[in-house]
Amino acid sequence: MMKVERKAASAKDASGILYTASTAKKNELLRAIAARLGKEIKAIRSANEIDLSNARRAGISSTLLDRLTLNEKRIAQMIDGVKDVIKLPDPVGERIQRRRRPNGLVIEKIRVPLGAVGIIYEARPNVTIDAAALCLKAGNSVLLRGGSEAIHSNGVLVGIVKKALKDVGLPTGCVEFIDTTDRKAVAEMLRQDRFLDIIIPRGSQKLIKYIQENSSVPVIAHGEGNCHLYVDSPADVKEAVEIVFNAKVQRPSVCNAAEKLLVHEKMARKFLPAVAEKLTSAGVELRGDGKTRAIVRNVRPATEDDWYREYLELIMAVKVVKNVDEAIAHINHYGSHHSDSIVTRKRSNGEKFLREVDSAAVYVNASTRFTDGFEFGLGAEIGISTQKLHARGPMGLEELTTTKFIVHGNGQVRK
Amino acid sequence: MMKVERKAASAKDASGILYTASTAKKNELLRAIAARLGKEIKAIRSANEIDLSNARRAGISSTLLDRLTLNEKRIAQMIDGVKDVIKLPDPVGERIQRRRRPNGLVIEKIRVPLGAVGIIYEARPNVTIDAAALCLKAGNSVLLRGGSEAIHSNGVLVGIVKKALKDVGLPTGCVEFIDTTDRKAVAEMLRQDRFLDIIIPRGSQKLIKYIQENSSVPVIAHGEGNCHLYVDSPADVKEAVEIVFNAKVQRPSVCNAAEKLLVHEKMARKFLPAVAEKLTSAGVELRGDGKTRAIVRNVRPATEDDWYREYLELIMAVKVVKNVDEAIAHINHYGSHHSDSIVTRKRSNGEKFLREVDSAAVYVNASTRFTDGFEFGLGAEIGISTQKLHARGPMGLEELTTTKFIVHGNGQVRK
Repeated sequence: MMKVERKAASAKDASGILYTASTAKKNELLRAIAARLGKEIKAIRSANEIDLSNARRAGISSTLLDRLTLNEKRIAQMIDGVKDVIKLPDPVGERIQRRRRPNGLVIEKIRVPLGAVGIIYEARPNVTIDAAALCLKAGNSVLLRGGSEAIHSNGVLVGIVKKALKDVGLPTGCVEFIDTTDRKAVAEMLRQDRFLDIIIPRGSQKLIKYIQENSSVPVIAHGEGNCHLYVDSPADVKEAVEIVFNAKVQRPSVCNAAEKLLVHEKMARKFLPAVAEKLTSAGVELRGDGKTRAIVRNVRPATEDDWYREYLELIMAVKVVKNVDEAIAHINHYGSHHSDSIVTRKRSNGEKFLREVDSAAVYVNASTRFTDGFEFGLGAEIGISTQKLHARGPMGLEELTTTKFIVHGNGQVRK
Repeated sequence: MMKVERKAASAKDASGILYTASTAKKNELLRAIAARLGKEIKAIRSANEIDLSNARRAGISSTLLDRLTLNEKRIAQMIDGVKDVIKLPDPVGERIQRRRRPNGLVIEKIRVPLGAVGIIYEARPNVTIDAAALCLKAGNSVLLRGGSEAIHSNGVLVGIVKKALKDVGLPTGCVEFIDTTDRKAVAEMLRQDRFLDIIIPRGSQKLIKYIQENSSVPVIAHGEGNCHLYVDSPADVKEAVEIVFNAKVQRPSVCNAAEKLLVHEKMARKFLPAVAEKLTSAGVELRGDGKTRAIVRNVRPATEDDWYREYLELIMAVKVVKNVDEAIAHINHYGSHHSDSIVTRKRSNGEKFLREVDSAAVYVNASTRFTDGFEFGLGAEIGISTQKLHARGPMGLEELTTTKFIVHGNGQVRK
């Protein structure tokens, strides 16, 4: 057995124990993890220091260095994160349906753990603890494959979780970690359909695409966020400017930030100069179609490619449209089906937009930046799915479970 | 654009129209399909005759010839099937969750169509109509790839659906059909992740495995049914014999038929001779472990491989176990996580079995043969999923939908 296969098999074995672990037991484990993290801050920081100095030597960018860093504040945040997961209700065992059939069979559908979850992620080592805590609370074991830059930090963090597992008498296989930087390990992980029930990739679109195309394990992918704001007519100009500004500028590097602005032709003369001034003064580069450029000066032309792109930086492409129908058609064609919002004072246009835009989250009169497990009230987030199977939009604990049917009979046989 | 890609793109385009089609419109379409099928029985039968004579010439088995045959009775059943789908409630638009957040956002989760569904199936041409009707009712377009033996029958059936689509003013791309027997077309279909939202394969395990390993489109697979019955102690011998007999003999060729029998050692002497007599007199070949063979004569030894196998014929392997724990461990290790049942008079053992067996459907005191969309009260069945993502167990209309979040705001921006 190859090393990755052995670890996947170990996670699968341990998942059998977690499958029936009580909520109390799982919370006891999470408390033990939080306690051990608090005691081993020094060990975490010195392992992180190795990763950081290797990274500096390799000349990685200051953004990535920052993501890699585990200082006291971030370790405290990790610990708080684990404590927050303790407080979340346990989804396992919840009864979703109950039917009594004419033949007397009582059929219930209940939530159960998925089993063994594979997580493939990049630089940030805090994901190791965040993801493990959520998987464990939902009764799943987890096989982690973190970024090679963070391998020492991740190794120490997983070691801490394994000690906590021992503390409470659960198998250490509940959390397994691929401790090699060899890229072949990822390819091998993607073939572990015998042992892994699901793989959740977090990272660049390139990584996610590679995983989707090569995995025989079912994948739940975070796709791109090419998010749109459509300013309808009539709309409150001031409210529209605030929403567009927030969605574009508040945190441009994340998937729920807006990349495109569509404006009703009747609003364009009034709204575009106001929003353009506010955006450009915050450093946003605007790209526009012909009609936009006729109204706002110094806007470079948007290309066909622009309408498809997720910038993740201070760039926004702007298009003037005839009406809500053209806006919806544009979004469904060019968008990435993540988060899209209409700003309108016309109720029927809002309803139409909510109904017809085929995205994970569709908004009326609010910023797209709210697409997030915490903001949606899930209490946690393992990611945001832009695919349609199993989970769509922010994923919390429920999305880390599956269901089974349990059937109570008294001797029924099929005629 | 290749032909398969063009058809997938056409189905995707049409799915945009179906996405917002009303229940009334979808039912009007289904009525038109039923009416057209009734009028074109002759055309269906003569196309089917071509398939049948080609199949006879190719020397296919009488079982497959039977599956391929569309006689008047089967056409009438197809029509009834479409009419049954009309009566089912439309899952689209159903509100599953509603939350008001402290900032005033109202977040709802509602059911929406999946989009474009690919179905890959084998010999039976009636699947063409059954699958199309269910997909359309759930607001999805469908790209069909049937077995090459049925290509003429399927071609005529799809032609009828396309005429019905025209009758009611919906795009004919709502149902597309790959009208070639070239196997490369399947491989090409599996790469259409730009256009297809999901692929549902129906057919041999070999076909399904191939599809799972090669599809970049998410797949919902019907796995094998290596189903178990465990007869506990104490159990009612007569009831246990009836359940085992029904699960094994009533229809041995289907996935929810039982393949394995586990018996508590305290029940073995009393129960095994009784059940063996009834099974063998119905032509069932028994294979057993040492303890079974010490009690029942003329039972050939079961090999390690037997415990993993789905026979789909009149063969049953029998093992004596120490207790419910050994039975559960055996089922979770060797089973296919489809359907498993305990026969017991001890309530706590029944509850333990329901809780700990990790299968799509787990029973107490009933035959495994009930794992079926109609028997479970879903009103329809597009298949039975043995995987854990999105749908597990019998899949009806709900499982042909996804969800989206719709968010009502009044100017909220993120802090």
